[in-house]
Amino acid sequence: MAISSAKKNAFYAQSGGVTAVINASACGVIEACRQHKDKIGTLYAGQNGIIGALQENLIDTSKELNSAVAALKHTPGGAFGSCRYKMKDIKDSSAEYERLVDVFKAHNIGYFFYNGGGDSADTCLKVSQISAKMGYPIQAIHIPKTIDNDLPFTDCSPGFGSVAKYVAVSTKEASLDIASMAASSTKIFILEVMGRHAGWIAASGGLAAQEAGDAPHIIIFPEIPFNREQFVAKVEQTINEKGFCVVVASEGASYADGALISGSLNKDAFGHQQLGGVAPTLASMIKHSLGYKYHYALADYLQRAARHIASKTDVDQAYAVGRAAVEKALEGKGSIMVTIERGTGKKFSWSLGEASLAKVANVEKKMPRSFITKDGFGITQKARDYLQPLIAGEDYPPFKNGLPYYPKLKKVLAAKKLKTDFEL
Amino acid sequence: MAISSAKKNAFYAQSGGVTAVINASACGVIEACRQHKDKIGTLYAGQNGIIGALQENLIDTSKELNSAVAALKHTPGGAFGSCRYKMKDIKDSSAEYERLVDVFKAHNIGYFFYNGGGDSADTCLKVSQISAKMGYPIQAIHIPKTIDNDLPFTDCSPGFGSVAKYVAVSTKEASLDIASMAASSTKIFILEVMGRHAGWIAASGGLAAQEAGDAPHIIIFPEIPFNREQFVAKVEQTINEKGFCVVVASEGASYADGALISGSLNKDAFGHQQLGGVAPTLASMIKHSLGYKYHYALADYLQRAARHIASKTDVDQAYAVGRAAVEKALEGKGSIMVTIERGTGKKFSWSLGEASLAKVANVEKKMPRSFITKDGFGITQKARDYLQPLIAGEDYPPFKNGLPYYPKLKKVLAAKKLKTDFEL
Repeated sequence: MAISSAKKNAFYAQSGGVTAVINASACGVIEACRQHKDKIGTLYAGQNGIIGALQENLIDTSKELNSAVAALKHTPGGAFGSCRYKMKDIKDSSAEYERLVDVFKAHNIGYFFYNGGGDSADTCLKVSQISAKMGYPIQAIHIPKTIDNDLPFTDCSPGFGSVAKYVAVSTKEASLDIASMAASSTKIFILEVMGRHAGWIAASGGLAAQEAGDAPHIIIFPEIPFNREQFVAKVEQTINEKGFCVVVASEGASYADGALISGSLNKDAFGHQQLGGVAPTLASMIKHSLGYKYHYALADYLQRAARHIASKTDVDQAYAVGRAAVEKALEGKGSIMVTIERGTGKKFSWSLGEASLAKVANVEKKMPRSFITKDGFGITQKARDYLQPLIAGEDYPPFKNGLPYYPKLKKVLAAKKLKTDFEL
Repeated sequence: MAISSAKKNAFYAQSGGVTAVINASACGVIEACRQHKDKIGTLYAGQNGIIGALQENLIDTSKELNSAVAALKHTPGGAFGSCRYKMKDIKDSSAEYERLVDVFKAHNIGYFFYNGGGDSADTCLKVSQISAKMGYPIQAIHIPKTIDNDLPFTDCSPGFGSVAKYVAVSTKEASLDIASMAASSTKIFILEVMGRHAGWIAASGGLAAQEAGDAPHIIIFPEIPFNREQFVAKVEQTINEKGFCVVVASEGASYADGALISGSLNKDAFGHQQLGGVAPTLASMIKHSLGYKYHYALADYLQRAARHIASKTDVDQAYAVGRAAVEKALEGKGSIMVTIERGTGKKFSWSLGEASLAKVANVEKKMPRSFITKDGFGITQKARDYLQPLIAGEDYPPFKNGLPYYPKLKKVLAAKKLKTDFEL
């Protein structure tokens, strides 16, 4: 890869569903770039992700105060805007890539930092191929982010630890609630959580149980084919033994033939089904089979936005992968994803590494079967050992008048240099 | 009321839906009783509320460690078990009251502390009438608790401030999330919250807006008859202006004739009748009228169990009303509810007072119309001034291994003294 020796500018974008800590990665990228002003010129952030690059809507991050950049570390959501937009394959259509090269050239951009999940790793890989296919030198580095924790070659994905903590804490709190009410009222509580194909988030609900037999009593994983009879039998057994039953269910729960138990037919921009409705479906099964009174919660965006109860480990890792992307770029690297590597010692430790984007893109890391109990309804000690350090530590945002305080960014757009607009 | 001069024991019970801070009230009662051992004997807690008294399942709180009692202040749920059980009117059936007197007599109980909402105030009143109607001296004092904030004669109800804070924080966090995604994906986010008849909880979502025009853009109150056309028009207008729309909707939202909007007979893609739910119903209206992609969350128990983000004001008040109940009993008072009185100064302050139970029972305090904007979709400055102090301050529980740490109580039952069981 030919790298120009002249000082290049950089581009950073957020992609896909946002998390409680994606802005901590943004903070890491911006702060690292500011520390290396001798080597990197202006850092532009894409307004609404890669769409910002295509439409030449580039936020000039140099206009932001240091204090506002630092505050990104405790601000949920995607501060520069994210998007669900999948680039076409360069073989099928080169128009988008030609446009990117035009924008990169016009703004002297030589570094491309892309902060996203599996689909975004694929986009980042395609961008990195511009170098080879279109002769424009660009170092594309992927910064991992996904609450689903399904990226391969990394111990975990920033964003996951905080959702895991939110789900574990919420499961524990709601379990104490229903335990108080069960004698004369509600006996079933179901918490529906995210995780389309991988059960990592649902699994983290299992951490709420401190002793064997503690709630949650049932976890529904997308990796385990759902069997209604076994589920209802387990609910009945739990109520007979404990007096109440707490269920954590993944939105991706499905039958052996792959049909979602939520029966949703909506699809999003990536062709993924828009899920929701597992909890009411399970509740309805219990009501019809056993007749118990139930309650259910659908955490939805609350779980991935809950910066107030973020995991300190997760915040630290999110920040670190952002910084590392810049540092690896300055080492001349490209076409990689920054990874988190867990130490082998008994005490939890982690360091950063990297993986080839060609290997990462579009590979989903599911829960190993060894993390799920034999009956398919719980997590094993192996899973607990893996998950527990990821929710460790609190990192509360500052509060003002009872609410988390998030300063707003200026988000000044750089002057456009191209004469044409780009239609998506 | 004839009060025996001999040292009497006391009874405490939790009633109705539990909250994040009802145990803080329990802590206040227990600690105050321990401080007045010269005047009050053993404090028994009803196992599962008043049912514990009827069935003579009395938890001997003297067996609990001081540290475990102190920890109740940061433990959500109802530590001794709550219940949904409404006592019959003494005129219709005296059996329950005769049983209570038998249990009270057998255990020398002269103080009755009942921790609940409107229905429970009614029960507490009925128990206080035992004195007059059945000749057994009992000082019945109601300790207010309800997330719905619908108790009269008190500035607020302990439990509400913490739900309000949870809803305000969650609304703010989710608003940052959807704001990042709206350009190319989800444009509508709906958070369904509790509050069957009173919109206090929904209103608290409005605190998430720091400046005019900030999310949430629409609040649906049970006090305002729902109008689909006006709602859809407001959503469309908001999306045109802001690019996205955040809605906080009360579960009690209903049409002018009183029909709940969640009671729709919509059928899903498979012809199954959809389960109730204000959020999915609103989402469906938007989808059909405007076609936008939506997300919705149903906080359910999470909102009232979320001790991790409790309001410090609320925790302090919950503890204080518990203590005050004991102190007022020692002043010889009965047939009252402890109330919270707001100071009239500019700076928020509060003190404790009392109200006659006869006036409190079964009265619901709804949102004044002056707290709701003219268009019916927002809160006024008056509402903000009332609500804001109630969510002020954080009071994080201690964490251990990434999770809030809640020691378990021993809950030792006192030996039964009656020969008969009681069938509910």
